[in-house]
Amino acid sequence: MNSIESVKIFKIGGNVVDNPNALNKFIADFATVKGAKILVHGGGKEATRLSERLGIPTKMIDGRRVTDRETIDVVTMVYAGLVNKRIVALLQANQVDAIGLSGADGNAIRAVKRSPIPTDYGYVGDINPDAINIRFIVNNLLSNNISPVFCAIMHNGEGTLLNCNADSVASALAVACAQSGINVELIYCFEKDGVLRDIDDATSIISKITPETYLDLRTTGVISKGMIPKIENALSAIEKGVKSVVIKNSNNITNNIGTVITSEK
Amino acid sequence: MNSIESVKIFKIGGNVVDNPNALNKFIADFATVKGAKILVHGGGKEATRLSERLGIPTKMIDGRRVTDRETIDVVTMVYAGLVNKRIVALLQANQVDAIGLSGADGNAIRAVKRSPIPTDYGYVGDINPDAINIRFIVNNLLSNNISPVFCAIMHNGEGTLLNCNADSVASALAVACAQSGINVELIYCFEKDGVLRDIDDATSIISKITPETYLDLRTTGVISKGMIPKIENALSAIEKGVKSVVIKNSNNITNNIGTVITSEK
Repeated sequence: MNSIESVKIFKIGGNVVDNPNALNKFIADFATVKGAKILVHGGGKEATRLSERLGIPTKMIDGRRVTDRETIDVVTMVYAGLVNKRIVALLQANQVDAIGLSGADGNAIRAVKRSPIPTDYGYVGDINPDAINIRFIVNNLLSNNISPVFCAIMHNGEGTLLNCNADSVASALAVACAQSGINVELIYCFEKDGVLRDIDDATSIISKITPETYLDLRTTGVISKGMIPKIENALSAIEKGVKSVVIKNSNNITNNIGTVITSEK
Repeated sequence: MNSIESVKIFKIGGNVVDNPNALNKFIADFATVKGAKILVHGGGKEATRLSERLGIPTKMIDGRRVTDRETIDVVTMVYAGLVNKRIVALLQANQVDAIGLSGADGNAIRAVKRSPIPTDYGYVGDINPDAINIRFIVNNLLSNNISPVFCAIMHNGEGTLLNCNADSVASALAVACAQSGINVELIYCFEKDGVLRDIDDATSIISKITPETYLDLRTTGVISKGMIPKIENALSAIEKGVKSVVIKNSNNITNNIGTVITSEK
């Protein structure tokens, strides 16, 4: 049995996926990252655009796409097909031996269809943390210098594909690797340089957040709105053994700028 | 280094992919096939339907889809996304550890963009027989009981995806495995029970074709039209070391009915 000591898991979203220049830059940077690495990508606006062209109404509730039968086909086409293969082909051109995966491939990650009560999201799933195939991901792929590229389309093990949240896919993978004794760094890439103390001041990056300092940041309202679930998700990953979570700008993943969330003081 | 002694490579087309009942039946049968196995699938009519809905004209020349920039996106979505993941999820539900692959994934198969002269097919490629990553397919996947499921979207190694012919993908894989010393059986599944002596008599199956008997069958016109390239493709695979090529009905791959193309008399 092969193994690895550490892994870096990067998550990118629409600001990279939707922009060819940003994507090329990110891919070139990702190619320079040493050691075992995993990429998780969202789908960006391409799914919404395709739905519009097909006359399928897009319905979002709390930022989550309501995924009826037609929409699961659309997101499977866009995320697992177009976006995933485009990224993999670019990585291969940059000498990264990448492999594109949905959760069904290699039975990598299973999800559970969300209960239709109180809100029926349709074919939306939540990752089953006990159904992450670490043996496949680590021994068959990472140990052989193959970098998995995950979209957020998972399966339930019974033949049904489910639309999941890419942030959650990244953190579930990070936790599963950590619980297998691997040092994990989880890097959420977005359009800013990190978590900002003052939203109007791009340089006011909070360099470190610990479980202790978070409470204070939240109480004083420095961290609010959409950043709350992101940080709490990161803190939960830390609690489950992930060494550090970094929130940084996708336009330069090789520098040291960003917010590190860690339990180390 | 792990290895395998034999492999069965199945190719299915539109008559299976376009029909949910036929697909479920095929998947259930494929699940019972013992030993190392690979599935190669075409895309069926779904790409044409999606193109129509998007108002993209479908242009075919000699049965080959002219693949402009918009069309390569459509076929990547449909073949590598929708059809591939649907098949993989169904296989997983049938206890087959399947992994869906384009040629870019794991740098499995590279293709060369077809010359625009005399006919510009756009993003259409021909398999590069020297660029089939047998080490990945055999050692990383088949040796670990993982069954690759290939769509016919390949890459050129420079970041460009190319639309290829699924029959050719299957035979290129078969030849590459054979040349690595593996016993290969290549099974083309279609809507008839085999190659028929009399096109109007479904029971008139030619049970065996050898290079010698083929000449006679062709001269007398028993084999004509669309069957000629199929059989010549099969004979070429045989010549390059594939043990046998079987042409049979996709509705029952577990029986012995079909046409075997072999060099054994």
